[in-house]
Amino acid sequence: MREKVCVLGAGSTKYGKLNESIVEIALNASKDAIDSAGITPRDIKAGYISNVFGVTDKQVHMAPVIMSNLGIPDVPGLTIESACGSGSIMFREAYANIAAGFYDCVIALGVEKITHTGTVESTTLFSYCSDFFYEGGNGASFPGLFGSMARAYLATYKSSEEDLAKIAVKNHENGFFNPKAHIKKKITIDDVLNSPVVASPLKLYDCCPFSDGASAVILCNEEFAKKSGKPYLEVIGSGRGASPAAVQSRKDITTIPSTIDAAQQAYKMANLSPKDIDFAEVHDCFTIAELIDIEDLGFFPKGSGAQAVREGRTTLRGDIPINPSGGLKSKGHPIGATGVGQVVEVFEQFTNKAGERTVKDAKIALTHNFGATGASAAVHIFKKME
Amino acid sequence: MREKVCVLGAGSTKYGKLNESIVEIALNASKDAIDSAGITPRDIKAGYISNVFGVTDKQVHMAPVIMSNLGIPDVPGLTIESACGSGSIMFREAYANIAAGFYDCVIALGVEKITHTGTVESTTLFSYCSDFFYEGGNGASFPGLFGSMARAYLATYKSSEEDLAKIAVKNHENGFFNPKAHIKKKITIDDVLNSPVVASPLKLYDCCPFSDGASAVILCNEEFAKKSGKPYLEVIGSGRGASPAAVQSRKDITTIPSTIDAAQQAYKMANLSPKDIDFAEVHDCFTIAELIDIEDLGFFPKGSGAQAVREGRTTLRGDIPINPSGGLKSKGHPIGATGVGQVVEVFEQFTNKAGERTVKDAKIALTHNFGATGASAAVHIFKKME
Repeated sequence: MREKVCVLGAGSTKYGKLNESIVEIALNASKDAIDSAGITPRDIKAGYISNVFGVTDKQVHMAPVIMSNLGIPDVPGLTIESACGSGSIMFREAYANIAAGFYDCVIALGVEKITHTGTVESTTLFSYCSDFFYEGGNGASFPGLFGSMARAYLATYKSSEEDLAKIAVKNHENGFFNPKAHIKKKITIDDVLNSPVVASPLKLYDCCPFSDGASAVILCNEEFAKKSGKPYLEVIGSGRGASPAAVQSRKDITTIPSTIDAAQQAYKMANLSPKDIDFAEVHDCFTIAELIDIEDLGFFPKGSGAQAVREGRTTLRGDIPINPSGGLKSKGHPIGATGVGQVVEVFEQFTNKAGERTVKDAKIALTHNFGATGASAAVHIFKKME
Repeated sequence: MREKVCVLGAGSTKYGKLNESIVEIALNASKDAIDSAGITPRDIKAGYISNVFGVTDKQVHMAPVIMSNLGIPDVPGLTIESACGSGSIMFREAYANIAAGFYDCVIALGVEKITHTGTVESTTLFSYCSDFFYEGGNGASFPGLFGSMARAYLATYKSSEEDLAKIAVKNHENGFFNPKAHIKKKITIDDVLNSPVVASPLKLYDCCPFSDGASAVILCNEEFAKKSGKPYLEVIGSGRGASPAAVQSRKDITTIPSTIDAAQQAYKMANLSPKDIDFAEVHDCFTIAELIDIEDLGFFPKGSGAQAVREGRTTLRGDIPINPSGGLKSKGHPIGATGVGQVVEVFEQFTNKAGERTVKDAKIALTHNFGATGASAAVHIFKKME
């Protein structure tokens, strides 16, 4: 017997370069989520936090600090880390605890503050999320690893650097309508192709930015959600997967096994197939990642993703809009918060708060978020309830 | 409906200054736990890891690396952090997932490597586990905070610095018989009283060391445990609690609210009272902590702990042996591993592997582990099964 799990409220700070402390950033998102759900902090029975590099802002052991500042110092919490996938892996753990009946209402909060360390130090720290013995320690940071994946993809399937650029252009187009986005700027294919090479074939505009930010959602069981009288989402699918930590250990680097495994679990649980999804928030840390994601998630057959992109099928008005929020590429990528931020986007879409980036008539949405090069991943499917 | 949760195997590295990488340390404990349980890595369905400062050894996102090295790269995992309480808070999450029926067998692995950063840097990093805005940021590191708690306790209850020293002597006595202990050295009360003052009234021998190390246990449901035909423990009680993050926000600093809350939950679930516990592993990061713990856990009335210590009631041959392993004080305190290491001790005690530190005829044991000054805490109760 499992409880149905619902998302009753959601809040997010702006993503970008933020000057507040990591605790203040986390509290701002938490308070917005609590207000959005129409609850009081006292309704919260546990705190699930996702964060990776709090140590750089001199605060780990964050749950007691957050709970104390929310006025509920007796409410237990913990921090979950799974690199850039921390938010969704944590969300799944919060989901599991509600589903199992351990709590009726919890807060799931993702937060990161990293821009104060600077680009070089951030890149170094992020490389600790790779299999450092084989990858980071030998100079293979994430742009290089995703560059290799992009090179392999372009060599294997009918696709071009222009197709990758088109993904960046589309996500910037969507993010332009997101008031919380880090990079609110429309760009052209030429802008991408002419931007400095980071790790060939990836150029600057193929890469997401380093961002600070926090996102939070209130998760509860169905009884709690119904009593509130407010609109909510139900989590109808959940899955998580793993891939070999080092990219070199994978048989095929044009696909990410953890995504496929997590997605299959989520579809099976929801009793749905990819064609039932109205839109998806996917992990586009680099443009090549989104191209791989949309195939691994089953939206398009293997090797045909680039053609789908060319045909505009993933735009806001396409048959499967991808990253209406702007994605990691434009909305930003505060790594501990990203997976939660995707759920915030689904909540806003389903509660008429998405403005000009609204996906019309959407009722079923999917979120997909992974850690590192996809060594860990989680997929969730949400249904709009009224 | 909940599954019964069992501990089927346990393994630990030596605690102390270790030269291997954090990944190698973690793998050594994992392999020992797997061998001890008589399973193969393929039996493991998920990996729960606890760690705080992996970033100092250049590896976060540890689960994929550990699982890949164990030959099960498709098995998902995550890292949980709750400062010095990470091990027990993670253990509880692993427990909850088995209890809820999500998995039949998981590995719960705690690991830390910190001594390479040196004492000053370690103290600084650890202070990030406090409420840094109020505490660490104003120079209140943990020795100072526990020094304040000790000063308050000594001023409030009939007790002396010699009573604190007696706790250190007792734990070193126990740890002398633990081949994995960091500090295998018997000490006298005079040794403690004459050791350099760290934060008055606490002296060097009132403080646990900074340690590297890893501990791992195999958790499974009852069906899995019974099929194995091996001796195992059942987790019959589990609780976790929280206190105000900053010590200054607490009404009474001679007690730790999170311990009391977690213990009451665990006793209630097990339908037991403190007098039913045959021995306990408790969080003695400083001697004062153990004195407070044994009262908060209900073994002795408030204010009478020092007398109980004086009477030898907490020694290996006393009526409630505390820290037969040697505790954090002698066995060591690799902060991400400590809470798991306590479970390893219970497993060894209940499977005739504790040698000269064996608590005779013990059948019920309790573990207690907290983060920082007790802002987070978890308590578990175990029953010997045959």
